[in-house]
Amino acid sequence: MFSMQNLVFLCLFGATATFAQTTDSTFIRSIYTEALSRGKAYEDLRSLCKDIGPRLSGSSAAAMAVDWGQQKLSQYGFDKVYLQEIKVPHWERGTKENAWIRTKAGKIIPVSVLALGGSVDTKGLLRGELVIFPSLDALKKAKSADIKGKIVFINQPMDETMINTFKAYGACYTIRGEGAIEAGRLGAIAVIVRSLGLASDDHPHTGSMHYADDVTKIPAAAISTKDADLLAAIDPKEKPEFILEMNCQSFPDITSYNVIAEITGSQFPNEIITFGGHLDSWDTGEGAHDDGAGIVHSMEALRILKTLRYKPKHTLRVVFFMNEENGNRGGITYANWSKELGEKQIAAVESDRGGFAPRGFSCDGTPEQVKLLESCRDILTPYELHVFEKGYGGVDIYPLRNQFAGIPLFGFVPDSQRYFDFHHAESDVFENVNKRELELGCAAMSAFVYLLDQKL
Amino acid sequence: MFSMQNLVFLCLFGATATFAQTTDSTFIRSIYTEALSRGKAYEDLRSLCKDIGPRLSGSSAAAMAVDWGQQKLSQYGFDKVYLQEIKVPHWERGTKENAWIRTKAGKIIPVSVLALGGSVDTKGLLRGELVIFPSLDALKKAKSADIKGKIVFINQPMDETMINTFKAYGACYTIRGEGAIEAGRLGAIAVIVRSLGLASDDHPHTGSMHYADDVTKIPAAAISTKDADLLAAIDPKEKPEFILEMNCQSFPDITSYNVIAEITGSQFPNEIITFGGHLDSWDTGEGAHDDGAGIVHSMEALRILKTLRYKPKHTLRVVFFMNEENGNRGGITYANWSKELGEKQIAAVESDRGGFAPRGFSCDGTPEQVKLLESCRDILTPYELHVFEKGYGGVDIYPLRNQFAGIPLFGFVPDSQRYFDFHHAESDVFENVNKRELELGCAAMSAFVYLLDQKL
Repeated sequence: MFSMQNLVFLCLFGATATFAQTTDSTFIRSIYTEALSRGKAYEDLRSLCKDIGPRLSGSSAAAMAVDWGQQKLSQYGFDKVYLQEIKVPHWERGTKENAWIRTKAGKIIPVSVLALGGSVDTKGLLRGELVIFPSLDALKKAKSADIKGKIVFINQPMDETMINTFKAYGACYTIRGEGAIEAGRLGAIAVIVRSLGLASDDHPHTGSMHYADDVTKIPAAAISTKDADLLAAIDPKEKPEFILEMNCQSFPDITSYNVIAEITGSQFPNEIITFGGHLDSWDTGEGAHDDGAGIVHSMEALRILKTLRYKPKHTLRVVFFMNEENGNRGGITYANWSKELGEKQIAAVESDRGGFAPRGFSCDGTPEQVKLLESCRDILTPYELHVFEKGYGGVDIYPLRNQFAGIPLFGFVPDSQRYFDFHHAESDVFENVNKRELELGCAAMSAFVYLLDQKL
Repeated sequence: MFSMQNLVFLCLFGATATFAQTTDSTFIRSIYTEALSRGKAYEDLRSLCKDIGPRLSGSSAAAMAVDWGQQKLSQYGFDKVYLQEIKVPHWERGTKENAWIRTKAGKIIPVSVLALGGSVDTKGLLRGELVIFPSLDALKKAKSADIKGKIVFINQPMDETMINTFKAYGACYTIRGEGAIEAGRLGAIAVIVRSLGLASDDHPHTGSMHYADDVTKIPAAAISTKDADLLAAIDPKEKPEFILEMNCQSFPDITSYNVIAEITGSQFPNEIITFGGHLDSWDTGEGAHDDGAGIVHSMEALRILKTLRYKPKHTLRVVFFMNEENGNRGGITYANWSKELGEKQIAAVESDRGGFAPRGFSCDGTPEQVKLLESCRDILTPYELHVFEKGYGGVDIYPLRNQFAGIPLFGFVPDSQRYFDFHHAESDVFENVNKRELELGCAAMSAFVYLLDQKL
């Protein structure tokens, strides 16, 4: 039956939908204008990178970064700003980090290495014959007799033919994470891994690694891609000797904090939309892309909404997670704490893929939740966003899934091409972040959080 | 009527379409692998930027760039490599380029300027009171009495709130192109324009400008954005004096060349798909993004197709156009020459927006031609290309439209966010081009030219 009432209803509904779309569209335009014309993100990132610097969990700089975050968030005048106590691992690189290769002919060449985070020290100069494997799989198939007492070098490169560099990273990162276990299991005295980077350069890329309870812990370091190629070019018949010195050390866990700020929801204050990045970084470079960018993306997203006098329906909460890099204690603690408080977490968004030109968002969720993401496509297309698809959320927000079954987890997706030039390396500094690219990321994050608040 | 024949036809047709799609898809995958694993583009760009350097039309370096291009294309062994003679303008910056601002209180501050290309010289130190206008429109409304004998400064910024930076450039570039005419018409003795760049930095951006036959030619220069802000902050009551010295000079036209290479079409040798960039650059920086990137995008696109033993149906022709920056003589000559030869130009593609991460292609053409472009979307989506829409082709290929009515003109569209940090400035150097971003552009160009050859 098609009645006059139906017609009237359809007209009204149509008008409302159009009005909502226009309102959203106008508001999102104002978000972008604020980010690009009066944005604070670039200066905030400069301050985090230059006034604080690298900030590995447990370090003094990480403690200063907590102060920095609390102060910044307080200055922006959000409804609540508070700390959440956690215990984090404490590992220090130490003062010695040297490596050489010595050929049979007696040529001695220094090479660039960085201890992997969590590695044991070498207790002075450690020397051993270098055995090269093209991949972790090849190492796993090796015989202990060929490895015992030697130093293993896993020269597995990231696959440069993959278009998305995060996929190439994902396919390769076990060499860093598991290399020490596999080499140690076969009797190696140390393991060197090719840096997880796509560029040919001189700076090694550090990162987390693991030991197993049943395997002797051996020192583990990353070598620069250029020096990896240098080692690989040496004739194995030369039986080159590798010499490694690192005095890195682990200490007891230490107290640290997540830093949290929120604008309280006007209709559903107990329903939380969480978004954030991680405040800790590796101890090389300045953690500019990883994850200073995510920190300022999130803080600026909330600042813009506040500046535009937006009154959210749900509570919008920024979390600066501590300890994403080597423990994820911040993410786990946050999820547990929220559950215990009886909060309802309705969505979470993470930015931890750098401060590059935005391309969109991915959704770790049900087909319906992916559809919700896709429903943002048309209104965000004018901002050159085009990725609205199923994909990963992020390490920090992942533990929410264990406490809040069914919560959709979203990842901010910037262009990935340059990320692994900087990731966990001394080149991850403020100067390598582009102002506009950073600001557009802030605007994308702000617009998406706004749309989630409207649509949920 | 639905007959068995229809069913058989549909099945066969469906199978053929699927087969073609699979073949295309496999071939395009091999294009990307070649570009990313065995690409020559980055080294070729290094060579153009470092061995040749900046190469303004008419300069010795431009002549060397012609040699370089002919040699490179010959080394790659294409079916034909040849030069096409043209006459180009010849303007030289000279040895003196200085500017200062002097306040009433006697404070003298040096500022960074670059003569605009084609500007007349100042014949020694030129001094005048500085009058500031916020826009070209404001200048047009001014009275001659307020301007006569003074130096006009047009401080119109590019609109940073526009998402696509080329749109912001397009909306602002008349201050550079027409500023000298408008200021000269009102009796100014020189014109200074705010650099067309979005970043706040110290290096001015040069570019082309025009004079009118009925207006006295006055010296014209761009000032860095930082110094533009400095000038704008001076109280007009200070009646600041601007002091400018430039000894740039124009010379008679000089002989130069377009550099051309092709793989002859196996089915339609007289039907040409033209693609290219421009070999000339401004005389500051190294012309790395503008348009060294376009040169190597095009050359590498053809090299990859040759390496993969692709036999094109139509003739695939790379053109290194000369003189895009200040005359477009290369583009005009090429179009005329092709018409005179009786060739059939069926499509043209230009890369002149930098060597950044690819986003897609635009089409200056009929709705049907835009649909042809859109038909490439699905097969290129895995390569993170998403722009397939109506839009500009390029300056070099535009004259083809005058000789070959109805020809579709396509523009390669990389991410635009960083382009105007480097455009026409000393920062446009090889080091500011990312290897993967460049290589992905080559692959995108190669894949698109392949698809055009298949679809046309």
